[in-house]
Amino acid sequence: MLARVNVIAGGGLTSPRGFRAGSVAAGIKKSGALDLCIIWSDRDAAAAGVFTTNKVRAAPVLLSVERVRRGRARGIVVNAGNANACTADVGLADARAMAQLTAEKCSGAADDVLVASTGVIGVALPMEKVRAGLERIELSSDGGADAARAIMTTDTRPKECAITFQLGSATVTIGGACKGSGMIHPNMATLLAFITTDAAIMPSFLQAALRDAADRSFNLVSVDGDTSTNDSLFCLANGAAGNTPVSAESPEAAVFRDALTTVAVDLAKQIARDGEGATKLVEVTVRGARTVEDARRAARSVTSSSLLKSAVYGSDPNWGRILCAVGYSGADVDPLRADVRMGAVWLMRDGQILQFDRAAAVAQMAGPDVFIGVDLHLGSAEATAWGCDLTEQYVEINGKYTT
Amino acid sequence: MLARVNVIAGGGLTSPRGFRAGSVAAGIKKSGALDLCIIWSDRDAAAAGVFTTNKVRAAPVLLSVERVRRGRARGIVVNAGNANACTADVGLADARAMAQLTAEKCSGAADDVLVASTGVIGVALPMEKVRAGLERIELSSDGGADAARAIMTTDTRPKECAITFQLGSATVTIGGACKGSGMIHPNMATLLAFITTDAAIMPSFLQAALRDAADRSFNLVSVDGDTSTNDSLFCLANGAAGNTPVSAESPEAAVFRDALTTVAVDLAKQIARDGEGATKLVEVTVRGARTVEDARRAARSVTSSSLLKSAVYGSDPNWGRILCAVGYSGADVDPLRADVRMGAVWLMRDGQILQFDRAAAVAQMAGPDVFIGVDLHLGSAEATAWGCDLTEQYVEINGKYTT
Repeated sequence: MLARVNVIAGGGLTSPRGFRAGSVAAGIKKSGALDLCIIWSDRDAAAAGVFTTNKVRAAPVLLSVERVRRGRARGIVVNAGNANACTADVGLADARAMAQLTAEKCSGAADDVLVASTGVIGVALPMEKVRAGLERIELSSDGGADAARAIMTTDTRPKECAITFQLGSATVTIGGACKGSGMIHPNMATLLAFITTDAAIMPSFLQAALRDAADRSFNLVSVDGDTSTNDSLFCLANGAAGNTPVSAESPEAAVFRDALTTVAVDLAKQIARDGEGATKLVEVTVRGARTVEDARRAARSVTSSSLLKSAVYGSDPNWGRILCAVGYSGADVDPLRADVRMGAVWLMRDGQILQFDRAAAVAQMAGPDVFIGVDLHLGSAEATAWGCDLTEQYVEINGKYTT
Repeated sequence: MLARVNVIAGGGLTSPRGFRAGSVAAGIKKSGALDLCIIWSDRDAAAAGVFTTNKVRAAPVLLSVERVRRGRARGIVVNAGNANACTADVGLADARAMAQLTAEKCSGAADDVLVASTGVIGVALPMEKVRAGLERIELSSDGGADAARAIMTTDTRPKECAITFQLGSATVTIGGACKGSGMIHPNMATLLAFITTDAAIMPSFLQAALRDAADRSFNLVSVDGDTSTNDSLFCLANGAAGNTPVSAESPEAAVFRDALTTVAVDLAKQIARDGEGATKLVEVTVRGARTVEDARRAARSVTSSSLLKSAVYGSDPNWGRILCAVGYSGADVDPLRADVRMGAVWLMRDGQILQFDRAAAVAQMAGPDVFIGVDLHLGSAEATAWGCDLTEQYVEINGKYTT
């Protein structure tokens, strides 16, 4: 990993040079909170994106997939409170109009604007509110924090981070913000995540690095097993730091990739911790798998198990559910060789049940961070996945979402 | 389907001729309820079984998989309260001992006894209690109802049924019982289900018919997405009805297969309705799929969605979640062609959002049975899957299961 990364306290989307953001309460959310924002680069930027694998894709996803292919963009317009998903032709026209209005507002070209939406599925966007809201937006170089709030739905807190590090002879910054909460079981990206950087990066390498970072972060998060129609992860790299542009062959490629992954993992963990109704973050590390794919599958299966998630909520070391979830994950497993531990307390070793101290195991589950370890003893691959507990509040939130 | 099937009110495992059952409270369940039973045929029976695809298989599953291969058996011994799973070599020895003790009790051979267990994972069976319990069991020709109770864990009610029908010149009976509740997302069979019949059936055909029935019933039920380590479905056919033995080529093959499926579907629906914490049965029918596999996948994905299950609990017609779950199921879907309805209320037609009467849609979700229909308009295959709502009680039950 990195020689050295400096975390910018309170940093986010507008920490990198040349990025501004602006947000308004356009009235799309019933609460009257911020719900519409623009993230804008003062110059052309390399652009990359990773999107949901759900075959039902929201209109803004259909539009942004096409635009990201060009490898360049200037800005992103995002609304929360309405997903513009399952909205047929009207939805696509509305997504295009959002981009057009944003381009006019910011003196850019419509093709350079990426679009993302999140919220209720199956209801047309209130375009008059969107139009009036976009007109009122003021971009500012400290607008990142408000943008992180404007993209929230049932999230209880904004999720952002930023780091600086040395890339060749230049000091560069990467910032990001995301929203999660429910319908979180990404398969290519999570609900909405945006990353900005002032590093100069070649578009093809930016796309490869972003996909790799997503595979190590957002794609290993699960809140409820539902893969959204709107998952979108965008990265804009505008080169304002003045470094020599980085390609896959550059000596700085690994440094940038690791830094990008650091930001992505930080954001992904924030999503898991703030899952709908969650009280605890669950981190599951699987070691000794035959392949990385097996390790990821097994770790994610454990974080996705409703039974294990309920047991974590109740601080119940019902560890058979851990091995059970590994067993149906599709990963190779020999139950007679596996180790399982809850935090520092070993529960199974070489497939043998241990007489563990129950109170000690319960104590490992009592705090806001629960660590579960599994060693399959079949190979040398490993992976870590993140999730949260399942609580009565999840059911309450989702029993009355559209009402 | 069948020309005519007669349902036997209150019927179950001992409705077919030549089958007896006996149950005791052996002290394996903390509640002191019935927890150990034997189901026994008074003569050799053809035997078939379908088992969990979880790679972590409980000891009784490992044993029974081998014994079912012989195509013959005399009886089944079952305990609830302890799954004998993740119990390594000790578990396998215990399962063998259960079969041996049962054979001695019933004057049969140990190889002719199938074994099933359900309950907590990762704790060794209390064999002294099992031994003492088996000694006290009394077999009787009306012991089916008690056996249906003895196999329960968090089930709130026993699940059994029986039918009679004409098979060639003989009147034959099929009876069954099962238990479900949590860790229900079968992939080959559900937690525990036992079917008895006095029909004479060739073992190879019995196995094929049982697998087919499982694919149309238990394998289309989901309570919580967790595939158990102990799923076992057994069928014993003892020929006491005196019919000409039925093979796959017999004219009566289709009649028997349909009757067996009728019993399996009835039991599967009872499991969905009594899912842990459930207040409603959800039946999802997907039509117009390209393949049966696609239809099953899509229907099951909808019944498995935590978001949709929460919405059903709250009678919230948040139908975008239905199409979203179809979208990530892996089935082919074109969102611009799909129809979606909640009971009798159409929500989407040919991919266009309908202005539906919200109160009418809510009313379709208010009762104990919620019907959801999806037409993909891509082919002619269809499937129906069953599930239940997700409630606060599921979390409560599973937050404190081992305590």
